[in-house]
Parts: sequence; structure tokens; C-alpha cells
Amino acid sequence: MSNKFEGQQNPLNKAAIMFADSAGYAHIMNEDVCLPAIAIKKSALENNIQWMQNYANHCGISLAPHGKTTMTPAIFKMQIAGGAWGVGVGTAYQAKVAIAAGVPNIIMANQLIGRANMALVSQLKQQSSATLFCCVDSQSNALKLSEYFSAHGQTMNVLIELGLPGGRCGCRTADEAEALADYVATLPGLTLAGIEFYEGIIHSNDEQGDLARIGAFISEVIDLTQRLTKKGLFIHCDEVLLTGAGSVWYDIVCHQLMAADLPDNIRYVIRPGCYVTHDKGVYEQSQNALTARDSLAGHLEGGLVSALELCAYVQSLPEKGLAIIGFGKRDAAFDAGLPQPIAHYRQGEEQPFTANAMKTVDVMDQHAMVRYSENVQLQVGDILVFSTSHPCLTFDKWKTLFLVDDKYTVLEEMDTFF
Amino acid sequence: MSNKFEGQQNPLNKAAIMFADSAGYAHIMNEDVCLPAIAIKKSALENNIQWMQNYANHCGISLAPHGKTTMTPAIFKMQIAGGAWGVGVGTAYQAKVAIAAGVPNIIMANQLIGRANMALVSQLKQQSSATLFCCVDSQSNALKLSEYFSAHGQTMNVLIELGLPGGRCGCRTADEAEALADYVATLPGLTLAGIEFYEGIIHSNDEQGDLARIGAFISEVIDLTQRLTKKGLFIHCDEVLLTGAGSVWYDIVCHQLMAADLPDNIRYVIRPGCYVTHDKGVYEQSQNALTARDSLAGHLEGGLVSALELCAYVQSLPEKGLAIIGFGKRDAAFDAGLPQPIAHYRQGEEQPFTANAMKTVDVMDQHAMVRYSENVQLQVGDILVFSTSHPCLTFDKWKTLFLVDDKYTVLEEMDTFF
Repeated sequence: MSNKFEGQQNPLNKAAIMFADSAGYAHIMNEDVCLPAIAIKKSALENNIQWMQNYANHCGISLAPHGKTTMTPAIFKMQIAGGAWGVGVGTAYQAKVAIAAGVPNIIMANQLIGRANMALVSQLKQQSSATLFCCVDSQSNALKLSEYFSAHGQTMNVLIELGLPGGRCGCRTADEAEALADYVATLPGLTLAGIEFYEGIIHSNDEQGDLARIGAFISEVIDLTQRLTKKGLFIHCDEVLLTGAGSVWYDIVCHQLMAADLPDNIRYVIRPGCYVTHDKGVYEQSQNALTARDSLAGHLEGGLVSALELCAYVQSLPEKGLAIIGFGKRDAAFDAGLPQPIAHYRQGEEQPFTANAMKTVDVMDQHAMVRYSENVQLQVGDILVFSTSHPCLTFDKWKTLFLVDDKYTVLEEMDTFF
Repeated sequence: MSNKFEGQQNPLNKAAIMFADSAGYAHIMNEDVCLPAIAIKKSALENNIQWMQNYANHCGISLAPHGKTTMTPAIFKMQIAGGAWGVGVGTAYQAKVAIAAGVPNIIMANQLIGRANMALVSQLKQQSSATLFCCVDSQSNALKLSEYFSAHGQTMNVLIELGLPGGRCGCRTADEAEALADYVATLPGLTLAGIEFYEGIIHSNDEQGDLARIGAFISEVIDLTQRLTKKGLFIHCDEVLLTGAGSVWYDIVCHQLMAADLPDNIRYVIRPGCYVTHDKGVYEQSQNALTARDSLAGHLEGGLVSALELCAYVQSLPEKGLAIIGFGKRDAAFDAGLPQPIAHYRQGEEQPFTANAMKTVDVMDQHAMVRYSENVQLQVGDILVFSTSHPCLTFDKWKTLFLVDDKYTVLEEMDTFF
């Protein structure tokens, strides 16, 4: 039963490989691994990493993918090797994981709060050559950070966060942000290193309304950058960071920032995350809308494709037209649409598959319910492959994911660190 | 920074302890650990384990807690040490984790499907003295199991699963179940070891209607048990298993089974799961309903209390009355009510707390939004403690949980194996 990855395997590994061929490869569709399991198609993953990097390159903008999506060092490494400037994270712990993966630049897109979290970042700064940034939106936090880092003979790079009324973190007006920047510039433990924002909080069913709000917000960001620059608040940085953009509106952010009249020493950084595996749900919809409105995305070769798939057994066929599948809320995202069948295998052979002939109608903790039409021939023990919506919440259910080729041969076991 | 658990710590551990007192203990409210983090109160956990064991003992029924809830070997060990007969799981992998924790009896409350899953169970049977059971509801699966285990010189203990029309797995009628039992009895690789059911799928807003349906379902289970016994289908077992009951209706199951006219060699096993940490949401509601209708539960000393709490920082206070908290969907369950504040700390000191003066109104992937009244004095960096609803979906977000005393001193790091 020896396989190529035995050395790496956690002895209590959910994604257990039980069989392998003579070359050491396990094949999911041959029932070589315990199911349910997550398969990430290497071809699709590489395609997506390349596509988004091409997009950023065409814009002349740097890419720091939102690492919280995957928390998978093997994927961080692929993104950096593909040309990403850094990775965006939310917490000190996530920064630690990114640094362990060799990421050179890390944006913590949050205030850094609390003694232990500050101590961890201080330790990371000592132990690694990575450049770390965090956000600030309050004078009290700025003071605490300055006190902590100056007491340790360090300075922390901070980005002023500009937010939206009714939104998430961040100063609510450019005036408030400017006052905070003035204050930060007086603090010995901090270096004012740029401006951070996140427009993704704007997302309604009214695309035109959203675009108007986003345009106004980014104008405010640009205006703030100009004001802080004119005041000379960035004089301690060779390079000033200006960073925003999630997976839904990165086209708007890129084009508006690059068209702005801003100094040459600004590094523009976008931070989309879900593009890396994409999906067949909410992110497919938002990317379709994006390519429809953005000629660059529409004309770049290829496009994002869904890379993350859930493989599970038909667990029980207790009633006509009802299949109980061996996965549930403990295995996959369910908050933005349920995982839906996309392929059907039996004893290693792909079976005929008709779109919409099977539909996941409900999901419990450990089971999913699929209704299927009379034309579908299902047997207990068949493997169904499911696409998902909202990849983040599938990633964090798993300690190990399988990187697979297009035939579901396991190429690599990738550990997650949530 | 050395602490009592350093030897055990995963180097990339989300729940990182950064500081400790002179005795090696870390204190969450002193900001000794990176937040967010999950705290499980030892006193409450022990109380719940003891309470449910007392309940089962009073009924003369065995307890095999639903291990899928926690997948935490340290908790499995406490449950077994507290008197539990075994643990219930859903998959071969989960059985492996339970066996590694020393659990003597394991009920896989599902059909065992697929070559790798069967191989893993076969391996576990070889390597351990634990007794394993799985369910069957189809002849084709029974045949496959028999072929697999007899080819390996083993026999597998199977339980006939009786289900409910429109429900989850399981035969839909006693006749169907009896025909399957007849068939299983002819198969060389299987031992017919009992009957399994799960009444928890019945759960509407109409308690009286639910009780009537459950009563009828359990009568069917009892009738099936009598029929199979009379046919002599269990003659190869010293002990016959009859097992059901989740956390919502275990009182009904216990009383109806114990009042039935069934043979002496039956071991009755209930499998509640969420009781172990309980919650302040859906399970608190169902337990309140249970103690109101069941005099045994109402009169047993003590009662279930919420043990699982989420500790997180006030991350940002961007607008009047709005606090952004440093946790989100990636850290806690959100499908059955959002985590709600229950306590407030600042620099190690508990602050005044008024019920309903703070309310979690929304949750994003990494942030929660709390609205608070004018009387509440919040500062960035304060720690809020949140109770949760539906513990299962919080457990599976974490690799490590903190077992704490009532002052949030970390007593043990408990690893999960999802």
C-alpha cells in the first residue's frame, strides 16, 4: 500500500491514501483513497494562478493573493513562483504560515490587536527577512503598536485603512484618516507605509449602483493618498503601498488606480483570493459579470475555471429518486449554494452525465441529499464529483487536500493550516 | 515564553500560546495566546459528560456519544473514562481516530462504502482489539462488504439500518429491513449484530406531532427487533445491539426502548453528541424542551451547560454603536444562530456586562459585526467572549482547542482530527 507521499502523511490524516499503483500513485476514481475527499485540479489551479498574474501584469499592478482563502502553503508557493509580490492575510498566525511558506511580503489587512498577536509578529520580524505590514484605523491601536514595537527595538509598517460607512473596519472619512496618519507619523515604533482599503463590502444586486459607489470610494482613496503625499508623511518609505481589491471588483480598482495622478514610488497591490480555485457558484457569477464589463479580462487568453471538487460516495439509495451522499456541512461550504454534482464514476469508469439530472437539495452535518431523474442509473458505491460555491469555507474543513491531474490521480498531498 | 504544552505544540498551531506565568500556565484574558481562540470550560465539559452518563445509567442504557461532533481524542478519552461504552462515528477515518484514542466499541452509523474505506476498517480490525460495527441498508452493499471481509479472513459486524420515508439512510419499511437481515444472515463475511436507527431527522416546530411520529418509528424498530429475534437471525451474537437517539429526543428513545418486551441479551445504546459541550442556541432550546417533558432529566442533579466559548478581540470601532470583532465564518458556526457576546474583558479584568446590550448582527468570513448600546464602554483590544449555537460546526474550524478553567487559564491543548 506504499504511495509517493507516505513520508509526509499525518498518521491521523482524513485524506488517507490506502492503495497505489506500481509507480506509487493513488487514483481517486479507483477507490484508492478514503472518501469524502477534496480534489484540486492542478491544471485548473495553474491556469488560474497564471491568468490573474497576467491580468495584474497587464495593469502594471502587483498581486498579493488573499491567503486566508486557502491557508495552504503549497498554493502560496505556487502563487509566489508564478509572480505574486506577496500574500494578504488577516491575523498574526496567518502571517506565520505565509512566512513559513517563504512569502516575501505580507499584508495583514487588519489592525494587529493584543499582546500575544503583537509578540508573534515581533518574533516573525526577528526570525525572517519577510516584510510585514498591518493596518490601523484607530489612534489607540496605533499607540499600542508603537509602544510594543519600539520597546522591542523594532518598527512596524502600518497602512492607514480607509473604510465605508456601515461597512467593516477602517476610518470612515479621509479627514479622519489624515488625522490618524498625522498621529502615526509622530510615533517612534511605526512607519507609515501606505493606504489600505477593501471595496468588496459593496456587493448588492444593483451592479450600476455598486460601480458608482466603488468609483466614489476609490476616488476618496486616491484623494487621501495625494493629501498624505503632499504633506510628506511617506518620506520614510522608498515605496508607498496602495492596496485593495477582492475577487469581485479588481478590474475597477486596477483601472481607476492606474489612471490616477499619483507619485511614481507607489506600489499598487490587489488582493483577490477566491480566483485561485474559482468556483461554480458565486465567484463564477461575479467573474462572468467582470469579464462582460472589462475588455482586458474579456480578451486575456483563457479565463478562470473551477479547480476545487469534492469527491464522495453514493452512500444510500433508500427511495426512488433520492440518493444520500457521504458528505455534509462538515466537509464543504453550504452558505452560498450547495455543492452540485458534475461527474459520475463507477469502478474507475466515467458514467454518462446529464446536466441537471441530479441536484443536491439539502445538506445535513454529514450527509447530502441528491434528487435524481429516472434516466440516471445510480448505485450505492458510485463516486459523484461535486463543484462548490464559496471555496473559502470548503478549504477550512480539511487538514489535507489532494492536488490531482485531470484523471483524479493524486499528484500531491497539500496540508492546510487553519 | 515557555509554557506547559510546548512539547505538544504543532509548530504551525493556530491556537498559539505566546506567554505563560511562572508555573507555565497561559491566561487567555491576559492576552497570553493569539486570538481568536476556542475555550472549552473543563468544569462544564466534565459536568455534561457526567450528567449524560448519569441519565443513561438511570435508564439502564449504554452511551456511545456521537464522536463526529468533536473529533477530539482528549474528549473521547474523558467520555470513556466517565463510563461511556463506546463512540459513534460516521466514517472509517473517524473510526481510526476513535481507536487511536483507545475507544473500545465503535459504531459507524453509516454504510461502509468503497475499497479504501473498507481497507482502512480491515486494517483497524487487524491492528486493534476494538469492536467495530457498521450499518447496512442495501443488499448490494452487504454483498460487497461480505466479499471484502471474507476475502481478508475477517467478519464485519453489521447493524440493519431502519430509516424514515423522506429521511436519510436506512430501509424504509420493517419488511424491507427483514428481507435484508435474512440476506445478511446468509453472507459469510458478515455478522448480523443488531439494529440501528436515527430519529433525529424528525424535528419540526410541532413537538406533539414530532413525538407521535417518533413513537411510531420506535415501535417499528421494536417490532423489527422482535421479528428478527424470533427468526433466530441473531444467534451468532452473545449480545445484540439496538441503537439510536441523538441529542434532541434521547429521552423518548430511552423510555420507549426500556419499556419494550425485548430479549435480555440486547444492549441498548444511545448516541447523543452535542450534549458534551452543549450550547446557547438550538441545543439549549431542545434540552429545555426535553427537561420540561421528561421527569428523569428534570430531576437529575445539575443539567447541561454551555462549555464551548469563542474568545476574540474588538478589532475596530469604526462607527458609533458598531464593533468589528476578530472572528468570522472561518472560526465558528453560523448556520443555527450567530455567536453572541456573554462576557467582556479588558487587560485581564472582567468588565460589567449587561445581557442584550451587545448583539452580533452579521458575520463575514473573518469578521463579525456587533451592535452595542450607549451604556457599553468598548475599546479596541478588549476581549469579548461569545457563546455559540450548533457546536459541531465550530469544532471543525480548529486544529487545537484550549481546555480552560473558569478563569480562562489554559489547562490543556486539545487537538481535533477532522
